[in-house]
Amino acid sequence: MKIRINITLKPSVLDPQGQAVATSLLGQGFDNIKNVRQGKILDIEFNSKEVDINMINEMCEGFLTNPLVEDYAIEEINT
Amino acid sequence: MKIRINITLKPSVLDPQGQAVATSLLGQGFDNIKNVRQGKILDIEFNSKEVDINMINEMCEGFLTNPLVEDYAIEEINT
Repeated sequence: MKIRINITLKPSVLDPQGQAVATSLLGQGFDNIKNVRQGKILDIEFNSKEVDINMINEMCEGFLTNPLVEDYAIEEINT
Repeated sequence: MKIRINITLKPSVLDPQGQAVATSLLGQGFDNIKNVRQGKILDIEFNSKEVDINMINEMCEGFLTNPLVEDYAIEEINT
């Protein structure tokens, strides 16, 4: 089984990296840009065909994300 | 209009960061992990309600990704 975890900064958290990308794109002439925010993807492949969602949440909250400043969303990937 | 760009390493490209995450999770007792690969998210908000897909592709291929080693996928986000 394969899942994708989309990790994004909470809306209230400043994102200087995203702002740098926005500034850079504006400088390249893409003047339609309003805002850019950056996030992370983790594609995780498991040995088994079924995975306990509680285990995935435990993994995300304990190790893969910082729950203070980050949100995450889990989706299954079909391969 | 708001889009999300999912940037991932091409399957043939080694991903030491993803491997480090996998090793770390295995060390924490999540022994069901087979493989982890890391990627990037860019959430881009535009001033206009419609955006030319060719402009987005130009932006991705010219500035936001490295087409030699990275793939990208574009999706619209409803807010």
